[in-house]
Amino acid sequence: MLPHSEIMISWIALNMTPGVGPRVTARLLEHFGSAEAIFDAPRRELALLRLPSEAIESIATRELHDRAEAEIERVRRLGGEIIVLDDGVYPSLLRETYDPPVVLYVRGAWAECLDRPCVAVVGSRRCSTYGQNAALMLSRELAQRGITIVSGMARGIDAAAHRGALEAGGRTVGVMGTGLDQVYPRDHKKLADEVLKQNGALVTQFPLGTPPVSENFPYRNRVISGLSLGVVVVEAAENSGSLITARLAMEQNREVFAVPGNITSRNSFGTNYLIKGAGAKLVQQWQDVASELPADIAARILPPPGRKAKKKGELLDRLQLAPADLSAPERAIFKLLSTDTPLQIDALAENTKLSITQLTSALLSLEMRELIRALPGKCFVRRM
Amino acid sequence: MLPHSEIMISWIALNMTPGVGPRVTARLLEHFGSAEAIFDAPRRELALLRLPSEAIESIATRELHDRAEAEIERVRRLGGEIIVLDDGVYPSLLRETYDPPVVLYVRGAWAECLDRPCVAVVGSRRCSTYGQNAALMLSRELAQRGITIVSGMARGIDAAAHRGALEAGGRTVGVMGTGLDQVYPRDHKKLADEVLKQNGALVTQFPLGTPPVSENFPYRNRVISGLSLGVVVVEAAENSGSLITARLAMEQNREVFAVPGNITSRNSFGTNYLIKGAGAKLVQQWQDVASELPADIAARILPPPGRKAKKKGELLDRLQLAPADLSAPERAIFKLLSTDTPLQIDALAENTKLSITQLTSALLSLEMRELIRALPGKCFVRRM
Repeated sequence: MLPHSEIMISWIALNMTPGVGPRVTARLLEHFGSAEAIFDAPRRELALLRLPSEAIESIATRELHDRAEAEIERVRRLGGEIIVLDDGVYPSLLRETYDPPVVLYVRGAWAECLDRPCVAVVGSRRCSTYGQNAALMLSRELAQRGITIVSGMARGIDAAAHRGALEAGGRTVGVMGTGLDQVYPRDHKKLADEVLKQNGALVTQFPLGTPPVSENFPYRNRVISGLSLGVVVVEAAENSGSLITARLAMEQNREVFAVPGNITSRNSFGTNYLIKGAGAKLVQQWQDVASELPADIAARILPPPGRKAKKKGELLDRLQLAPADLSAPERAIFKLLSTDTPLQIDALAENTKLSITQLTSALLSLEMRELIRALPGKCFVRRM
Repeated sequence: MLPHSEIMISWIALNMTPGVGPRVTARLLEHFGSAEAIFDAPRRELALLRLPSEAIESIATRELHDRAEAEIERVRRLGGEIIVLDDGVYPSLLRETYDPPVVLYVRGAWAECLDRPCVAVVGSRRCSTYGQNAALMLSRELAQRGITIVSGMARGIDAAAHRGALEAGGRTVGVMGTGLDQVYPRDHKKLADEVLKQNGALVTQFPLGTPPVSENFPYRNRVISGLSLGVVVVEAAENSGSLITARLAMEQNREVFAVPGNITSRNSFGTNYLIKGAGAKLVQQWQDVASELPADIAARILPPPGRKAKKKGELLDRLQLAPADLSAPERAIFKLLSTDTPLQIDALAENTKLSITQLTSALLSLEMRELIRALPGKCFVRRM
């Protein structure tokens, strides 16, 4: 078996090979099984896979192996490291996705950041003050509760998302579309420094020196959603890249959320569209994101519903008193409901003698206080 | 059989009886079958139904029959008329609802208005400029296409909805929470006149002289949604009556729509909540409402999707050329898709050799131009 660094060098060299992007890499790996095997392949076999001749030449001569070795050293000097697809430490959520990057360049406390539940908060570079505030507020609230905020280090919504996490003293991961030695836009150098200083991390799949070219940004976006349990799109205009990010996230089976906005605002066209037509979940507040995370995480960070002491067990629950500030109709309904047996609205009407209008009003009020839950067929139960 | 006006007089008298609101009326009708039978009932039978003694007295003595007769005359002098639940002309959508009003006082071209597809546009009295503009715009666009706009004649969103319809030269119905001889608020007198002048109508279930009391407004709201195929809520704060209207509309099996807004706006809290938690459909533009109306109505008023000539038949459809302004990837995808056989995204990737990122971007663009439709399981078809 090759020493670890030899395998690594092959991955890194493959990732640096001209004409071999993520999609071609996936095809090569499917065919050959490992980076080493690709470099051992005869030229004619590479040609059969319709690789550009420049790439074939580079692979056959292993001309990039020296540069790859130097790359490891240069990344170390930057204070970073390189992890490859078959490392045990490669982020597991990202590994599960279709065509994950074979190499990740990382800086900062990446392992600690990615060990926590990650939520991406993204949106347009050109955004409104409303969008910036919404991104800031949601990221702050989520980061305060131990969620790592992942975003793309871009202007606008991305920057607001990172800043929200930093303001909360939380962790944030900046996924870059450039090499680890570049910061784009350049005036985000201070933001990048702050992310690192506050136990955050920077991540990119691109070799050192990679400039900000627009073809790379969609790949960056797939890493953003790939690292995250869900993606919150805060603002996006009609033809925004954020819409594509959202769709890619859906294809990665990630939860997609969108913050609605005025229908007269260009910047909210895309997010409203995602809610209307693409199944994105509407976000009014951080709880709307938290409640869709895996149950154990949601339970940890969400406050228990509108009652003080939360007791387990059916009997206790039945005995539980209604909150003191309920109106008479609300109290009557609350007393009739239990957590285990849904009651139909007609039964409630019969038992409370309330008119449908009074009943509906009281039910809605209890529902909005999260004391009860509406089920299909006009049935209602108490919330646990 | 009694002459028509005798039956009518009984209904009108019943509707005027003190202590007999819509809910009690429904209970009486269920028991006795008709207004006449109620007035023929012995006192003790009425008492068994737990009617207040004042109501029993009034019914037994038929004391309101004379006033009811005078009421018909007074309404005629106002230029209106009274229709009762068992009239053939009673609005059929309203009749289908739970506890419909037994009497409707109407003025203006009510039959023509209600014969057309009706959509309610409602919202808070205290609303933002954004909300007013959204209500105005949506009502104008829908009214232009022959939809009757139904609303509650209140300040704020309701007034904007009526005005939008009037601006478009369309029809609008004002449902009142007062008697037909009152206008509330008083400075909406001019609005009421314009509604009538422009072939619109005013409708109420309340006897002449009924002042604007808050208990009556929920009943007014049920008539608004009961007359309509769907209800669009434009703005609603957290504890807004419009939320109750929306919930009542759902209980009447009406489509409920809501216009989203900034999550930082109090006035959009309720509408965002309806979309997030109550299944209301998000409305960005009038088409979002139109497309949920019964298929024949939707087909009549919605423009055909993104292509010029709309041809029927599978063969013609297959031959149909892609619009000239598609990008190369969009064109490649469009050519592969047909209207009858969904294609999976993997098949599209295989056939087009596009990366997932390019593919997703092009699919999204085609989808937003309404040239293709996304189906579950990452499948796509052309739209008819």
